[in-house]
Amino acid sequence: MTRAAVFTAGSWGTAFAAVLGDAGTTVRMWARRQEVVDQINTERVNRDYQPDLVLPDNVSATTDPAEAVEGAQIVVLSVPSQKLRENLVHWADLIPRDAAVVSLMKGVELGTTKRMSEVIAEVGKVEPERIAVLSGPNLSPEIAAKQPAASVVACLDHAVAEMVADACAAPYFRPYTATDVIGTELGGAVKNVVALAAGMAEGMGMGDNSKASIITRGLAETTRLGVALGADPATFSGLAGVGDLIATCMSPLSRNRTFGVNLGKGMTVEEVIAVTKQTAEGVKSCEAILDLARHHGVDVPIIENVAAVVHDGRTPEEVVRALMARRLKAEKH
Amino acid sequence: MTRAAVFTAGSWGTAFAAVLGDAGTTVRMWARRQEVVDQINTERVNRDYQPDLVLPDNVSATTDPAEAVEGAQIVVLSVPSQKLRENLVHWADLIPRDAAVVSLMKGVELGTTKRMSEVIAEVGKVEPERIAVLSGPNLSPEIAAKQPAASVVACLDHAVAEMVADACAAPYFRPYTATDVIGTELGGAVKNVVALAAGMAEGMGMGDNSKASIITRGLAETTRLGVALGADPATFSGLAGVGDLIATCMSPLSRNRTFGVNLGKGMTVEEVIAVTKQTAEGVKSCEAILDLARHHGVDVPIIENVAAVVHDGRTPEEVVRALMARRLKAEKH
Repeated sequence: MTRAAVFTAGSWGTAFAAVLGDAGTTVRMWARRQEVVDQINTERVNRDYQPDLVLPDNVSATTDPAEAVEGAQIVVLSVPSQKLRENLVHWADLIPRDAAVVSLMKGVELGTTKRMSEVIAEVGKVEPERIAVLSGPNLSPEIAAKQPAASVVACLDHAVAEMVADACAAPYFRPYTATDVIGTELGGAVKNVVALAAGMAEGMGMGDNSKASIITRGLAETTRLGVALGADPATFSGLAGVGDLIATCMSPLSRNRTFGVNLGKGMTVEEVIAVTKQTAEGVKSCEAILDLARHHGVDVPIIENVAAVVHDGRTPEEVVRALMARRLKAEKH
Repeated sequence: MTRAAVFTAGSWGTAFAAVLGDAGTTVRMWARRQEVVDQINTERVNRDYQPDLVLPDNVSATTDPAEAVEGAQIVVLSVPSQKLRENLVHWADLIPRDAAVVSLMKGVELGTTKRMSEVIAEVGKVEPERIAVLSGPNLSPEIAAKQPAASVVACLDHAVAEMVADACAAPYFRPYTATDVIGTELGGAVKNVVALAAGMAEGMGMGDNSKASIITRGLAETTRLGVALGADPATFSGLAGVGDLIATCMSPLSRNRTFGVNLGKGMTVEEVIAVTKQTAEGVKSCEAILDLARHHGVDVPIIENVAAVVHDGRTPEEVVRALMARRLKAEKH
């Protein structure tokens, strides 16, 4: 019987703990707050993050990280991207030396421009062959509702990817395996920024032709950046690339898209945060992704324009018009 | 000044005539019915197909095909795919020998499995170097509303593609050029079938994760088929591939998606046709596309399953479950 630890008890972490449990894996979640842990252990619910999801019986919780990882073959990390480093410092020595470490996170670290798997390797002292990333068209409210979904588990060591995939293969959740960690991880990070742009266009009243064009160019941009970082371009045509991008850009459940829609309607970043009580991941990581692209000399007009709106006060009008109004040219290069 | 003829006066043909007109090209539309021609010439409106679109002054209409093509450097064809052959027989000798012939059509001919450009070459006796295809995320109601959109004009002779692109570059319409006629044309045809599948999933109550997975696999299927036919795989990552696919699968304005939604809700093909008063293009061409795939030995599970619903009475439930319930495996081949 596989055992897994899930750090932490946010919305995606909680939904994924239920996936693991439904797949027959025994799960111990770690949460900071005793009240969340008690709720999970007694009522089988995490009311703040997934109020409608009843966790299966093989999922329990603890505030003690050592207890969470005890006997775990799989350690799942799902904390906010910009907080991974500071959290991992406390957990690094507890992670079993032979466990697979799975990242559910979709960001790039500000300052260092490191992907989450790189932070895990560095701070967690985990060999890259044990680090897996899971990404795909997986809007967490739909997963929590047990709607059918597919995903990608990527690890340099394909046997580890298969072990993780086996541990989370539930009737409604189909994990595919891959070895392209960089591409799988980057697709998940950049899609949030593209969803902000697609949302802005929507908020400005533009239609699906415009949105589809922005998504298409966003995919090209992501692929260019991925290839520069060493990813396999084919990854971006798959579930963790275009699949996740489509789900995130089109779904009303996507926070990044919704954040962009509010910007497109004329709200400021501060106003959107005040109303929604949260910052979308793309808002936090677009600058780090832009830094990464600049460092590798990759042209990323969508990311650049989103960063200009989010951080430099440019209006979505200027940005979306700049993206749509290009000179006639051959589509390729 | 460029002159263009547009055969015929349906919804996309009418919207595209306005695009050409707005781009400064003088347009003569051909329509079968005198009443449609009179409406266009006197009221500048085609009430049956684009009631809210006021055509620019440089667009006129005629019932006489010879008058339509007189002096035209560009002849645009936009008739139902399965009617092209019988119509073109009457027009073939009228097409000026040096004009570019542009296909707006998105189907594959039943029986022959020919793409529209192939039918144009054969029946219209047009050299392949003069045949261009135009395809992209171009939902016609949005184009008629002058919402910003981008598209692809592909022709074996790149100079011809550029000439056509110049003739239709309007402030709200951005044509990119390409030389991959096969890929550009195939993307437009297959996306209608994938949209039926995505619509079925939606009609059955599935969420955006499932739909995004179906679209992603539909793109892979289209790419496999395209490569077998000699297309450039990169085309499917562009506007005429994934761009058009996204717009068609997600937009409430898409007839194919809507047709699929109704099937997913439990209506029969006959019931949907009775209610909507039209057959979606994907319903008509899925068998021809399936024949094409079989002829080239390409595995196309989505197209196969859609054809089984549309023509063999399988239920969307069986089909969508078959598509979502696959065994664990590596994502790539």
